[in-house]
Amino acid sequence: MAGTLPTVVVLTAPDEGWPPGLESLESSAQLLLADSPEALQSSLPEADILMVTDFRTTWLRDAWHRAQRLRWIHATSAGVDAILFPELNESDIPVTNARGIFDAAIAEYVLGLMLAFAKDLPGTLEHQRKHRWRHRDSERIAGKRVLVVGAGSIGRRIGNLARASGMHVEGIASRKREGDDDFQAIHGADSLYDLLPDADYVVIAAPLNRSTEGLFGSEAFSRMQPGARLINIGRGPIVQTGALVEALQTGRIAGAALDVFEDEPLREDHPLWGMPQVIVSPHMAGDFIGWREALSEQFVENFRRWCRGAPLNNLVKKSP
Amino acid sequence: MAGTLPTVVVLTAPDEGWPPGLESLESSAQLLLADSPEALQSSLPEADILMVTDFRTTWLRDAWHRAQRLRWIHATSAGVDAILFPELNESDIPVTNARGIFDAAIAEYVLGLMLAFAKDLPGTLEHQRKHRWRHRDSERIAGKRVLVVGAGSIGRRIGNLARASGMHVEGIASRKREGDDDFQAIHGADSLYDLLPDADYVVIAAPLNRSTEGLFGSEAFSRMQPGARLINIGRGPIVQTGALVEALQTGRIAGAALDVFEDEPLREDHPLWGMPQVIVSPHMAGDFIGWREALSEQFVENFRRWCRGAPLNNLVKKSP
Repeated sequence: MAGTLPTVVVLTAPDEGWPPGLESLESSAQLLLADSPEALQSSLPEADILMVTDFRTTWLRDAWHRAQRLRWIHATSAGVDAILFPELNESDIPVTNARGIFDAAIAEYVLGLMLAFAKDLPGTLEHQRKHRWRHRDSERIAGKRVLVVGAGSIGRRIGNLARASGMHVEGIASRKREGDDDFQAIHGADSLYDLLPDADYVVIAAPLNRSTEGLFGSEAFSRMQPGARLINIGRGPIVQTGALVEALQTGRIAGAALDVFEDEPLREDHPLWGMPQVIVSPHMAGDFIGWREALSEQFVENFRRWCRGAPLNNLVKKSP
Repeated sequence: MAGTLPTVVVLTAPDEGWPPGLESLESSAQLLLADSPEALQSSLPEADILMVTDFRTTWLRDAWHRAQRLRWIHATSAGVDAILFPELNESDIPVTNARGIFDAAIAEYVLGLMLAFAKDLPGTLEHQRKHRWRHRDSERIAGKRVLVVGAGSIGRRIGNLARASGMHVEGIASRKREGDDDFQAIHGADSLYDLLPDADYVVIAAPLNRSTEGLFGSEAFSRMQPGARLINIGRGPIVQTGALVEALQTGRIAGAALDVFEDEPLREDHPLWGMPQVIVSPHMAGDFIGWREALSEQFVENFRRWCRGAPLNNLVKKSP
């Protein structure tokens, strides 16, 4: 019987261990843990299915030539940039992702960041640390303009929640579309520079690919308002970090909240840590309590579909 | 002509100066600034109208016997506890307040505090200060239960905004009423202790009066969940500070965000400043940029009504 079970290789970062919740597959699949480059090299030839839980991995590309019977790759992340290397991109192996799982938590996180900026919560906490009573007037968020770069499921949820708080929200998608419940308007990617001057908050919720890598450099920052804040919960390399640091230091823009970075973890001596107008968080915006279990549940459901030949949920469109 | 103009005495804290925007009254009223107890003593006998811009003042009570022709008192604050001393309370002089001006800003502030707790923003900023990359899982706010104590215009706006973010919101008013757009349910004040065990967030948005003073003491805290947070944007004395500090220190409740205190400013050596699960802010929740102008505008509008004999807006129900 065991010989007829599909083999699922689970790629994890070292010391992560098994994702909680996968034990429900024990009778339906042969499960192998690949928590090192060597373990992946040795298990990949047997894999029918590969579950990738490390969104930063480069191991797969290095082991790719050993994939012989692979028929499906599932990434337990929203972004799949790290595994979409050319050889996989050109293959006909379907890739699915964790679309939907992180949306609502990330939207709350972004709303919390906008409110933290508007109410100067970092300033309040700094005064508190020094036991200083310092009254300041603060900003409203209602009526402020948000530009969400990326109109996928995460961007949409951000738009939806910001609108519910009375903000004016527009989105940027690959192509211009009609506005809807989430976005008052949806513009095409070629409108970015025209829209930046109007935004109080620019939120990056786009995938990392050839069109978005380095999209926010000095040219983009030069078009933003001096009072504007940048929020990046997408991927670090969409922002040119050097240009951002300069835009912040020269007051070109007023602030930034960054949950993702070109290199993660952000190195200890990076200037971003110490800038008072910057909020640095360690790639945690979407990670609500229970997210690991939710990811396993989502994979298990898709696994059941795969077993019965049903179309997979959350297929990723590979880049051209 | 000047002799027929009503006299408006403007009580302000020392060094505050004239409220911006009152200059539009120069041709319609005789304006006198009372920015010291002595100035109030000498100007009060002439006052037809008293505008009180200092919500902590005790000067009025001390000068009260000198009010001879006073016909209206307007407070440029939502809370009027400091001026509702017995002699004024028992007089038939109408009191109006700044109802409406601060509602939306305070609601945003409270939402920002709930999100700061849920996403552990204080922890993130503390790690940032030490250049530490420390991933944590964080809470959602959607689905969490908020109990708003006080169902006036501020409490309602808080309820409305929290519901728009997917929270379950109930309110406590003086009397039980039907639920509505702002609150899923509205309970009477006598239900407080029964409702506290269900709340993830307890928000105090009540006026300070004989029924609310000291309402949150050890008995109330003993009924809250260990994971619950208290947010007070109402008035400091509604909370017994000693009991709150003890409830926090013993882990009886998980956190508190306090914008108001029994004694303001909070003294420098108060233990609340240094507690990591507490957010201390200096009575600023409602003070959006432009609030002083908005308050003057509201008073000027009411002044015009008063001059033409129209009913005053925002009459305060004096306590029995």
